[in-house]
Amino acid sequence: MLALGRSVLGQQAFSRLLGTELTAWDARRCTLELPLRAELMQQHGFAHGGVVSYLADNALTYAGGGALAVPVVTAEFKINYVRPALGERLVARAEVVAVSKTQAVCRCDVFAIKDGVEKLCATALGTIVRLGGE
Amino acid sequence: MLALGRSVLGQQAFSRLLGTELTAWDARRCTLELPLRAELMQQHGFAHGGVVSYLADNALTYAGGGALAVPVVTAEFKINYVRPALGERLVARAEVVAVSKTQAVCRCDVFAIKDGVEKLCATALGTIVRLGGE
Amino acid sequence: MLALGRSVLGQQAFSRLLGTELTAWDARRCTLELPLRAELMQQHGFAHGGVVSYLADNALTYAGGGALAVPVVTAEFKINYVRPALGERLVARAEVVAVSKTQAVCRCDVFAIKDGVEKLCATALGTIVRLGGE
Amino acid sequence: MLALGRSVLGQQAFSRLLGTELTAWDARRCTLELPLRAELMQQHGFAHGGVVSYLADNALTYAGGGALAVPVVTAEFKINYVRPALGERLVARAEVVAVSKTQAVCRCDVFAIKDGVEKLCATALGTIVRLGGE
Repeated sequence: MLALGRSVLGQQAFSRLLGTELTAWDARRCTLELPLRAELMQQHGFAHGGVVSYLADNALTYAGGGALAVPVVTAEFKINYVRPALGERLVARAEVVAVSKTQAVCRCDVFAIKDGVEKLCATALGTIVRLGGE
Repeated sequence: MLALGRSVLGQQAFSRLLGTELTAWDARRCTLELPLRAELMQQHGFAHGGVVSYLADNALTYAGGGALAVPVVTAEFKINYVRPALGERLVARAEVVAVSKTQAVCRCDVFAIKDGVEKLCATALGTIVRLGGE
Repeated sequence: MLALGRSVLGQQAFSRLLGTELTAWDARRCTLELPLRAELMQQHGFAHGGVVSYLADNALTYAGGGALAVPVVTAEFKINYVRPALGERLVARAEVVAVSKTQAVCRCDVFAIKDGVEKLCATALGTIVRLGGE
Repeated sequence: MLALGRSVLGQQAFSRLLGTELTAWDARRCTLELPLRAELMQQHGFAHGGVVSYLADNALTYAGGGALAVPVVTAEFKINYVRPALGERLVARAEVVAVSKTQAVCRCDVFAIKDGVEKLCATALGTIVRLGGE
């Protein structure tokens, strides 16, 4: 399943541009990681919010896709940024909260790792649906 | 104000990486545009959701920053994807819904332009706060 | 259509308990109104947030139901409270932002009317789906 | 702390109208319960979504208020309804995800209890701020 997920991720040109890595994926959970570099920053020296929300969104999609076991898209999500994303690496951990035939509701926490210490920087909640079902 | 906004955008390495353009900005509204290219796609040939949400988030931040007239960050936002983002260019139009001393609530519609025709592909709603006030 | 909508509203025991009135409804828009009384307040003398969000949620559902033309439910929504809901009456105006075969994305503004003056007190964005499709 | 919380709840006329009970509250968590009765239903025999979102919103507010230790209001929240709220009682369990000087980001799961069996019916995520800080 991890091999399939990595293959899909490799087909996302934008994920290749950013450098996202899929490090865990099953029917309930997903972990995406992203090494931070200067190109992913905003003007205050933190990872751009768009990078954080991209990672959360993608992790939600994987978690929901794992649960629904069909091609999926994110229909909607909400994200709260709770701390500047400062460090060497972002880690997004998503899990399925509830799943029906047509949708999966998933949540995701995004952590920034700095000097080996993980801090929560954002939390998200969203709806994943079958591709074409949005 | 547009010159200031473009200067700030130019300081966002991630916005430079993506190629975002600020085309309108005042105390109530903001327009950001992004020419689409292969690097910004996902596996189905559409702009990656992360690109769409990045643009919405950034437009919300500009709209709120224009209203609050201080350095700001997005505290949180929600986005609904309503149609695949297919075309040559994305346009995000954000406006302030309500502003107080400490926050601005803003909404944003993101359109994809294909062959000159604009179609709504996402809509967002979020809270912008003073930098350090989140 | 208004008569049908009022009949449905009359079948909602909770809407009868609160005293909600449907004052406009078509395939794109809906207006719900609620006279405020002491029982709907919280401890600071404003309408309880739960009353405001109930009205927004219900208006979103009507707007989406009008667009989809089938029995519907709210799958999810987000609400920003922007001002205390103080006055004699709440008015929620919802409209359809985008509709597909399976869902309608709708937004809603809720106003409080005090001494005849309308002020925005909340804004919401949500997804309405066919009953059984959530 | 529980006594204080119950006193505040008793000052909310709307919470008295609905019959809400505060059964647990500390600096990180809150549990609100609501016995279901016919007046709280919608037309399909389930608890009205507005009842579920009211309970989630109020539980988020208590959780955030416990963390911030000052009078607070909900600035915004998002809720996903994942299953019809069918049963004798609703239980909302909220917890603090992150807290700063000015806000607390909290999440909440709402369960319906039917014949003693608890099922998740909604999940919410929101921002709680000091009263006057929204």
